[in-house]
Parts: sequence; C-alpha cells; structure tokens
Amino acid sequence: MNRILVLGAGRSASSLITYLLDNAEEHDWHVTVADYALQLAEEKTKGSARAEAKAFNINEERECEALVAEADVVLSMLPASFHPKVAEACLKQEKHLITASYVSPDMRAMDAAAKEKGLLFLNECGLDPGIDHMSAMKVIDYIRKDKGLELRAFESFTGGLLAPDPKDDNPWQYGFTWNPRNVVLAGQGTVKFIQEGRYKFIPYHKLFKRKEMIHIPGHGYFEGYANRDSLQYLDVYDLHGIKTLFRGTLRRTGYCDAWDVFVQLGATDDSYQMEGVEGMTHRQFINSFLSYNPQDSVELKLAHYLGLELDGPVMHKLKWLDLFEEVEVGLLKGTPAQILEHILKKKWTIRPDQKDQIVMWHLFDYVENGQVKRIRSAMVADGENSKDTAMAKTVGYPLGIATKLLLTGKLSARGVQVPIIPELYNPILDELETLGFDFIEEEVVLEDS
Amino acid sequence: MNRILVLGAGRSASSLITYLLDNAEEHDWHVTVADYALQLAEEKTKGSARAEAKAFNINEERECEALVAEADVVLSMLPASFHPKVAEACLKQEKHLITASYVSPDMRAMDAAAKEKGLLFLNECGLDPGIDHMSAMKVIDYIRKDKGLELRAFESFTGGLLAPDPKDDNPWQYGFTWNPRNVVLAGQGTVKFIQEGRYKFIPYHKLFKRKEMIHIPGHGYFEGYANRDSLQYLDVYDLHGIKTLFRGTLRRTGYCDAWDVFVQLGATDDSYQMEGVEGMTHRQFINSFLSYNPQDSVELKLAHYLGLELDGPVMHKLKWLDLFEEVEVGLLKGTPAQILEHILKKKWTIRPDQKDQIVMWHLFDYVENGQVKRIRSAMVADGENSKDTAMAKTVGYPLGIATKLLLTGKLSARGVQVPIIPELYNPILDELETLGFDFIEEEVVLEDS
Repeated sequence: MNRILVLGAGRSASSLITYLLDNAEEHDWHVTVADYALQLAEEKTKGSARAEAKAFNINEERECEALVAEADVVLSMLPASFHPKVAEACLKQEKHLITASYVSPDMRAMDAAAKEKGLLFLNECGLDPGIDHMSAMKVIDYIRKDKGLELRAFESFTGGLLAPDPKDDNPWQYGFTWNPRNVVLAGQGTVKFIQEGRYKFIPYHKLFKRKEMIHIPGHGYFEGYANRDSLQYLDVYDLHGIKTLFRGTLRRTGYCDAWDVFVQLGATDDSYQMEGVEGMTHRQFINSFLSYNPQDSVELKLAHYLGLELDGPVMHKLKWLDLFEEVEVGLLKGTPAQILEHILKKKWTIRPDQKDQIVMWHLFDYVENGQVKRIRSAMVADGENSKDTAMAKTVGYPLGIATKLLLTGKLSARGVQVPIIPELYNPILDELETLGFDFIEEEVVLEDS
Repeated sequence: MNRILVLGAGRSASSLITYLLDNAEEHDWHVTVADYALQLAEEKTKGSARAEAKAFNINEERECEALVAEADVVLSMLPASFHPKVAEACLKQEKHLITASYVSPDMRAMDAAAKEKGLLFLNECGLDPGIDHMSAMKVIDYIRKDKGLELRAFESFTGGLLAPDPKDDNPWQYGFTWNPRNVVLAGQGTVKFIQEGRYKFIPYHKLFKRKEMIHIPGHGYFEGYANRDSLQYLDVYDLHGIKTLFRGTLRRTGYCDAWDVFVQLGATDDSYQMEGVEGMTHRQFINSFLSYNPQDSVELKLAHYLGLELDGPVMHKLKWLDLFEEVEVGLLKGTPAQILEHILKKKWTIRPDQKDQIVMWHLFDYVENGQVKRIRSAMVADGENSKDTAMAKTVGYPLGIATKLLLTGKLSARGVQVPIIPELYNPILDELETLGFDFIEEEVVLEDS
C-alpha cells in the first residue's frame, strides 16, 4: 500500500482529492488529507474507507514532520510561501513532494539534496503553471527534436474565465473564478518579451492598452495582454535565439479597455493604505482619484479624465459594478487594491449556477522546406458548476496523474523538476484528454520564406 | 575658539564652506573640511589660515570618531544614508550635528539620547527641505499664533530651474542644476494630498498630466505638479483639520507634457536591467517601449501611441534631446532610468555660462472677519554661474547661519529638530534676506464667506 499525504483541503484541492480517491482502490492507496481546519479535511474525505482527515498547523514543525513521516508522497496545496517548510520536512523524512506552485529560489536550492536522496520534488504541475508547460513542450519537442527544425516564434496565452452564458447580463463576461486578489493585482511589474528579435518592454500603466485580438475557432474572439516576464522562458524552455517569445493572459473582448480604468486611476495600487476608508462609498472611492470640482459629476470627471464615452461600453461596465453608487464599501481600512477587490466581489463572486471556463492557446512558428509554418494549439474547458470548476480540475488532475505515475514507478526524474520532460507531459496530457481536456491543433503555411 | 567639522566637500558644500570661512575670523572659528578625496577638501580650504583639509572614510569608524572628537559641531554634507553613522559618532563624542537631509527613522530614534546629552541634531536645514519649512512656518505662525485665526489652505511649490536666457535654444528651459538621478526619478510613488477636506491620490503615471499653472508676478508662468506625500505635513507643521494641503514641484510651462512621454513609455523605470544595452542607440532605446511595426517610423509610432502632434511642441523637445538619433547611448548596462539619465546628460548638463534659478512659492488661505484672505509668498533667486549656483547657496547658507546661531549661544532647542521654530526661522530668514534671498509677500481678499 502507498500512503499519500495532501496538505491543504481548500477549494483548489477538491478535484485532486476526488481523483486520488477514485484511483485509491485500484492502486491500493491510503490518502490522508490534512488542513488547519479539520472540518474542511473531513468534508473532502467522508464516505471513503481509504481516506482519513487530520488537523495540522504548518507552523508546528514536529507535527508537520510526523505527518510527512507516515507518507510516501506529499502533495502540497498550501499557499506557495509554505512550500519551503514542507520541502524541508520532505527532505528530512526522505519523501517525494508534488506542488502546483512556481519553483521558488528556496525550492531550487534543494535540487541537489533531493537528487542525492533519490527524491522527486515536482512543481508547477497544475494548470498555469502546469498544463501550459506540458502542452507547449510537447509541440516544441516535436518541432525541434522530432523534426530537427528551428522554432522561430512561441506565443502562449491562458485565461480563467466565465463560460459564456447568454442569460447573464454581466457586460464584463468575467467573474472571480480564482483568487480575487490575484485578479486585481494581475500584470503589475514590467512586461518583457521578444518580438522579431527585439526586446520590448511595457510598463504596467500601458499594459491593458497593448492588448491583441485572438480568435479561437468555435469559441470566438478573446483579448490577450502580456504577462510579466516572458524572457524567463528563454531558460525554462531553452529558447535562446528565438525571434518572438510572448506569454499572455486571455480575457473576453472589451475587458481590457474597462479594466484599464482602474489601472489609470491608481485603484489597483496595493502599496499604501488609503485615508478615510471607514464609511467611504463606492462613488467616493472613485472620486478619490479624480480632481476636485464640486460642480461636476464623478461620471463626467472620470469620462473626461480618461477619454471615455459617457454612455459607451466602458462606462456601462463600470456602472454595472455599482461603482458610482453611494453604497458603502464596507471596510474599515485598506489599500486601493483591497478596496477595489471588496467592491468587485459584490458583483463578480461566482454564483452556484455559473460555470467557469479555462482557455489556453499557443502559437508556434517554424521553417520547413523554405516555408514558414504555424501550429496553433487550443484547449477550452468548461466547469460543471461553481464547485466542480474547470480551474479545480485542470489544477488537480495533473497533480493526481503525476502522483500515480510516480507511485507506479513510471518516473525516473529526481530532484526539483517541472513537467517539461516527455516522461511527464506525454502520459499526463494523454490522460487529461480522456478526462475531457484535449488540445485542438491546426497547422497552416504562413508564407514562402 | 570653536571647531567646526564639515564632512563632504562636494559641489553642494561650496557655499556652506565659503560662508563659514567668511565668518571664521569674526567668530574665532577653525574649520576642518574632510572628504574621501583629500584634493576636493584642499580645493575648498586653500588660502584660509582658519581651515584645514583632511581625508577620511565614513566606513572607518575610529577614524570618523577621532575627527568628530576634535569638533564642537559637525556639519554633514554626505549622502543622507551615511547620516545615522555620523549621528552615532556625534552621540558618542557628545557633539552637535547639522544636516540638510530629511529626518530618517534612524535619526528620529536618537532624539531622546541627543536631548539627554544636551545636543542639537538639526536636520532639513537647507533649501528643500529647509527654507521651505522656515518661510512657510513663519506665515503659518503669523496666522495661527499672532492673529489666532484658522489656516484653511496651504500650498507650497519649489523648483530648481535654469535662469531664463533668451539666447538659449533649449525648448525645455530646463537642465541638470542638481542631482540628475533625482530628476529622472522625481515623483515616483503615490501622490497624496487634501483638497477642500477630501483626500486625493494620483498614481505616478498620471502625475505629469495633473499639473497646475502658477503665475509669479515678474517671473511669469510655471507648472506645478504634486510631490509624493503631502499628508506627512499634517504632523510636521501640525496642520490636522486643514481643508487643503498640497506640496509640489515647479517647472517651466511645457515641461510636464514632454516629461510625461518618458513616464508613459516606462523610460523612468529603475526597477529592472534592460536587455541589449551595449551598442543600443537613443532611437532603439525609445523603440524598446513601442510596438513592433517595421514599416512605421519610431517618430510616428510614438506620436500615435501617446497622442502627440508629429510637429508639435512635445515632439520638438524630444527631437532637441536627439532621442530619435542613431547615436549610441554609451552604457554597457542599465535600468531604463539610468539610460535615460545618461542620454539627458548629453544636452542637459549645465554649461559654465549657464545660471540656475531657485523658485519657491507658497499660498496660505485663512478667514478673518468673515473674509477669506490669501497670502502668496514667493522667492526667486538666480545663481552667479555654474559653480556659485543658487542651489548651492540656498542649501549652504541656512546651514552656515544655523551653525553660527548655535555657536553664539542663540539656540535653546536640543534633540532632533527641523527649522520650524521661531528661534531658528526668524534669524535665518532675516540673514538670508541680507544675502539676497528674500520672499515677496502679497495678500488678497478672495471672497466674503
């Protein structure tokens, strides 16, 4: 029997735990789910003879090590900042570790120690990062290794969206299907990418103006805006010398123009506490960023300041959020970003009848026989409801499949890894396809070079 | 005989040292000027029987303490980050300390210890901070203490500019009369102020669009943009309850629109190292922030991106700086801000024939007998040449006068102080007037309230 320890039983762990329990009988697994809130762990394990729930506190070192000591592999769904602690315990107790979080410098530093002890510390094995790595590297390896050709351009976009619903009046076609705070802070920092061999830089305050249109057959038009530092993928995917390298985020059309209003106002700033938050209304919050002109309305001041049509689609989206209403925010203190998040939650919190949608889209250009060829690869996956979301599944299933591969002796990689190697991406993508998460690929000839 | 130690003999110390040497005979002073570069100290002291030059290294604790031990008062013209070290030595050796830098938290923490030993640690006693505090508090005390009335509004602007010169073709009417790096980074961080009882916030990327016009009789029009956090003056000047509180920076008209181009591009960002700096031209630097469109010119891309007239005054200012030329920047690496600074220095470095100009302007509103009254107070001072600048004098003289007041027993304040008390601001402003730095005040009745 193999013993699996899942740390953290929050929403994002649901599909992972379901997958593990569904496979527990066949592979003779015992699954321990541990959370600071015992009740949360119990909800996830009840009814299964192969699972048990435990309470634990990540800050209690001995408690944590005792849990880890009983397991063969540890899956951490805790916030990324706790992963170094978990990894230390895994090193000490000589256990494998799997997470969906980015490799931190602390994690990176444990590579040699993990290798020495024959342990796999697999990270970035969820959706983004995760499925993006796998689906991209599969095509990149196909072009470079199988065909022996040069990859000229790679672009990759992912979005966690609402599934289209014609009955919904939400003009943003967007809601909080994942961490609201991350949505509000998305894109902060300087964007860096390469286009046709030239380094390009976009400051945050211009990011949502520099969107591009992306069409996915059968699913319509999307807007893509650049992610922070695409240049790091020069190393991660070994793309040095590539002509174009761009990673971005997808939203539905019209989103970026409207979101840009918050960026321009400074309403996404998380660096200082605002004054006078207690009793502040939505309207006063917006007015805090506008000039003092008591004879003019907040609406007109905003429209004039940012060059918006008074009755246009951007103002309509803002009005739909009740931003101009004299409704109290409901916080005693907060940064602009925290206050904006609180206001947005009132309309953007996903309802039980709403479904989310994950959209991932890649573009690869290469030259073959004097022709520039382009492969487009797209995955669009809808959630079942507000609980069994596409997000939870696309984060949880790759983690679960990787666990199965490890425990059934199919993985030879050890040390700190991300799923960019065939022994990981091939079986995981294959099984994801059977679970309904498949990539549609098309290839076109762009031009004779 | 009193012994004065001046730490740092750079350009900003020139006028201070001149003042001290001019007064040394009368007051029986001996002045030691110490610098890391002995030659620099020697240049400042040569020809004076009452001065000596010494080499010293602020990082050599014992060397530093030995110097301080010989003095009665220490004047530090070192970069502000060294002041805690200097202050520690002054505490240990029980010596007074005077600087022109903002009070840091480290400095603030030494208040009780300095008081206990009967020492004055006077800071912010230059131009800005310095003369701004003194000239403002003199009027604020006049309204609140002498007249017993309420101050409703306080606005204060300072600019370090070029003196007007009709022979000069520089369309910016601006040059580096002080630290170029600070000019490039000016305004970064969030602006906070109070207008008619409402807190207002401006993000950096909107700062140079939110300028206001200021007219100073006899000197023409200026543009004022907000300084970072005006709210801290609620405490410093004890202004809690004031309706309007705003501090800003002055430039000549047309400057802000053109500088905003650098802000919008992200060219003032100091947070990351650019790629491909070696061999980069001015034109390529600008193009790094623009979209890839090889068939369009950098000029047109920029003008379209930021909504500029192709042959308008903003583009003219940029062209005058040779920004669109294929001239190498001349750096091997750098942040955008460092590269921009390097480019600007080629045209903005002050020439020997150029004079600088300091402009300071305050506004105070109060109610008296049912009438809203406004006092405007302005100082405009020109430098003599590129060495004896208005900047060096307005920083150095207040420090020198404060030293004289201290050594002649005219100051009772002890501990960490800034010059907002009458025993400092009255005699310093009076002597500054005799040196040619006087404030012109005018008072108008705005309205019957």
